[in-house]
Order: sequence, then structure tokens, then C-alpha cells
Amino acid sequence: MKKVILSEMAEITPRFSEVDSLGIVWHGNYLKYFEDGREAFGAKYNLGYLEVFNQGFLTPLVKINCDFKKILKYGDKAIIKATYIDCEAAKITFKYLILKKDTEEVVATGESVQVFLNGKGELHLTIPPFFAEWKKKWGITT
Amino acid sequence: MKKVILSEMAEITPRFSEVDSLGIVWHGNYLKYFEDGREAFGAKYNLGYLEVFNQGFLTPLVKINCDFKKILKYGDKAIIKATYIDCEAAKITFKYLILKKDTEEVVATGESVQVFLNGKGELHLTIPPFFAEWKKKWGITT
Amino acid sequence: MKKVILSEMAEITPRFSEVDSLGIVWHGNYLKYFEDGREAFGAKYNLGYLEVFNQGFLTPLVKINCDFKKILKYGDKAIIKATYIDCEAAKITFKYLILKKDTEEVVATGESVQVFLNGKGELHLTIPPFFAEWKKKWGITT
Amino acid sequence: MKKVILSEMAEITPRFSEVDSLGIVWHGNYLKYFEDGREAFGAKYNLGYLEVFNQGFLTPLVKINCDFKKILKYGDKAIIKATYIDCEAAKITFKYLILKKDTEEVVATGESVQVFLNGKGELHLTIPPFFAEWKKKWGITT
Repeated sequence: MKKVILSEMAEITPRFSEVDSLGIVWHGNYLKYFEDGREAFGAKYNLGYLEVFNQGFLTPLVKINCDFKKILKYGDKAIIKATYIDCEAAKITFKYLILKKDTEEVVATGESVQVFLNGKGELHLTIPPFFAEWKKKWGITT
Repeated sequence: MKKVILSEMAEITPRFSEVDSLGIVWHGNYLKYFEDGREAFGAKYNLGYLEVFNQGFLTPLVKINCDFKKILKYGDKAIIKATYIDCEAAKITFKYLILKKDTEEVVATGESVQVFLNGKGELHLTIPPFFAEWKKKWGITT
Repeated sequence: MKKVILSEMAEITPRFSEVDSLGIVWHGNYLKYFEDGREAFGAKYNLGYLEVFNQGFLTPLVKINCDFKKILKYGDKAIIKATYIDCEAAKITFKYLILKKDTEEVVATGESVQVFLNGKGELHLTIPPFFAEWKKKWGITT
Repeated sequence: MKKVILSEMAEITPRFSEVDSLGIVWHGNYLKYFEDGREAFGAKYNLGYLEVFNQGFLTPLVKINCDFKKILKYGDKAIIKATYIDCEAAKITFKYLILKKDTEEVVATGESVQVFLNGKGELHLTIPPFFAEWKKKWGITT
């Protein structure tokens, strides 16, 4: 059986204010680009922040990492790709890839893990029903 | 009668990430420094964001301006001074002054105006009682 | 003679990280949107930061102001419009307008003034030749 | 022989603008706090950005990670602790610890790796002499 891979891409145009005194995008801004990728994914696959919120859950990040391979300069265009990585735990994991738009060189890679908090702010240890349905809907689980 | 002038100062250490590719603090970051000044003022004179919130009000900005006189570089230290400017309207006005810490040169000046929103998000056109008391307490009005 | 008005618009999608604890875009982020407008303008009319830099000039901001009329929430889309305002001095002035994309309500207005610094970082008191030509090219002066 | 551990702490006061619509510090801001820790370390042990730059080197980040354990709210004070982790390669590694100032609860942990670029922007594969001396000076190597 073919494994379903869900991902989405978005274009990034680094802002002047995101470039540091070395003339390159300051590394911390990559977490904004990761979030841009996560939101583009959410918009495509109905997993946006507000959609999750309306189900009574928040999904704060508990872990993030980033490997910086190439620099981005002012004027560069880039692509952020966010790919959902399924697991059996009550977590949402994404892998990220930032590419230069013209050369497709890998600028950065990364990964994030989010957990589910219910309306009381308590950690939800099992997969919430809405998320189990989401997985079915998109063919990740059967 | 001597007019009461309330003001407070705070030290600013520009972050590496706040410096742009010209090697100077990106202009938009000055609004963060103004906010640093406003918060230092609020902490000194019991007008912090949470104190106002606990009175049932929000005080969003409706106007801000900034004049840039000198640059700040990475490694510079600066002082932000926020001064409360009284008026009869239901508004909170601050004047700002950013100085280089060592030379006391004026780096920037500015002004902001905030209004009062009640718990329903409606504009409060008269001075809220808690703010009238605040003015009395600090000798601004008699 | 018809006066030439040069302007450009760009779409703004507020980031999750740009929204504050009141659920609205933090006011300081509007200066980023103004810069987005300035850059869209520069891209359309050959007045981008790098184009000016390659002519041997920097154009730092000396003045900016913003009036906040309506709030932007997470999920809102907006339009930033930057309009060049000509003057006889050696300055670049822009007016800004931020509109909600769906209702076209005015979210904010503003204005910025930039000056010319030459390669030595000295203020250039007369209009640089490249900028005089730019004005002619776009029909602002004859 | 006792192993030398070099570390430095700095206080963090989250800005209003760093708090997101959930009322907690937006995760990406932790990378700024890590940098605050790195800079406090650099100031104490003569390894600041400008000191390294004056030796002809840049030390861009190639890897960073962060584990989020507890949230920080507006009004919280925190402590960032940066600890230098020695290795034989031409790298600078730091471990980070963010603690709540009052309860000393662990808010976040993290690690970053930096490499050396020479003045031409080329990766320096061996430890630069100035850094070897730095290690000796502080008793890390003999």
C-alpha cells in the first residue's frame, strides 16, 4: 500500500528587517518561515490554528530544530516546504525544507513537534477524535 | 503651582537581531524601545498593562510617531525615557526620548497616543474613574 | 497638466507571531507592512534598496508616523498601498494606507520620510542625479 | 583534574510584543533569549561577536534546537544560562537553559553549534589560533 505523504509549499520573500548586519537572514527568522510553512499546510489540509482552536485544542510546540546549510540574502526568494510526519502518539510532527527558489539549493532543514492541550490547558495524552478523523479523511490511517 | 512631570527611564541594549544589513538598529525596533519605556513607566507609576487590564480596560495605540536623529550600532547602549503628557481627553499620551548612554546624544524622539477600550471593546469617551484617581494620586490633577 | 501619482500595492498576511496577547496585530508590525509597501513600490518603479545602493546611496528613514484606525486579527488579509509624494527637497516621502482586503476598511495610515546618505555616510543635501533622472523617467518632473 | 565549565547567566524580561495571542511568549523568541545568553557569555569571557569579528572571523550558526518545557507569560521574569561545551572540532557549541526567575522551573533547554568563516566567507576547518588561545586562557585546554 502506498504511503500517503502530505505536504505544502509557500514562497518566502525575506524582509529587509529580517536581514542582519552580516547581510544574511538572521537565523531566528527561519522559525517564522517554518510557521509560514505550517500555516500553508494548515490552510490546504484544514489543520489551521483556528480550525484546531475551534475543536477545543491548542497545539503548542514542544520541540524544534533547524540545520542551516546555506545563507539567504536580501533579494533572495525561497520556498518553504512543510511535510506532515505521522506517528502513533498524540503529537503533530512536521519536517521542513527551505530551498532557494531559483537554484533549489537546500538552505535549511528542520523539524517540529507539537502536542495537544485541551481547553483547560491540560496535556491530552491520546489522539483527539477530531485529529483521528483528520488522519482518516486524508488517507493517513484507514 | 509647580506642574508635576512624571517620567521614567530604562536602559536599552540593542540585540544583534535588531541590527540590519547597514549595521544599524532597524528603525521599526524603536517602537519596541518606546514600549520598553512605557512599561518601565507603568511599573514605576502603577500603570502597567496588567494593572489597566485588571481595571477592565485596554489601551490600544491610535497614533505613534518617531523622528530618527542618530543611528544606534551593535554594541551601543542607550536610554529610553518615557514622559507622561497630560490632557483633558480620555487619552494617554507619552513623549519618548532615546539617548546614547555614553554621550547623551539624542538618537530619537517620538510620541504615542492611546485610548481606552472597555471590556466589550468599545471606545470609552470619558476618563475612566480608575484613571482619574491615578491622576490625583500622582498629583497631576487636584 | 495632469499630476503623475505613483503607487503600488501588496498583500499582507499577518503572521501568527505578529499577533499579540490581545489577539490583534501588534502595532509595531505595521512598520514592517509599510516597508513591504515601500519594497513593492521599489520593485515596480526601480527604486529598490539595492538599486539605490548600487547608485552609491543609502536612504535611511528620518521620520515615520502611523495612525491606527481598525485592528487586524489573525486570519485577516490586508492590502498595503505605498504612494510616492514628491517634494523639491532631497527627500523621499511615502504615504501609506493599509486596508482590510475584504471590506476595504481603512486599518491604518502613515507617512515616512527618507534622506540620502552618500558612500561616506554624509547627508546629501541636493537631489542626487540618479534620483533626478528617476523623477524624469516616471514623469514626475519634466 | 577538574574540568573547567564556563557559563554565564542573564535576566530576561519578555516584551509585550513577544507574547502571542495565546498569552504566552511566542516560541521563536526563545532564539533571541539564547542569543542574549550567548552575548552575556561573550561579554564575560571575551568572545563577543565584535571580538571574534576583529580576529577576522564570523561564527554563523549551523544548528540550533530548543525543547519547550513550560510557558512564559507576560510579566514573568526568566533567566537564560549559556554554557560553553568544548569539543575538538573547529566549532563553538553552547547549551542553554531558561529558568523562571522566581520558581527556578525549567522553561526551555537548547543547544547551538557555530562554525568559523574567514574573511572570504570560507569555512575554516581547523581551530583558528585566536580561539585556541582563548581556550588556553580560560583553562579549557592546557
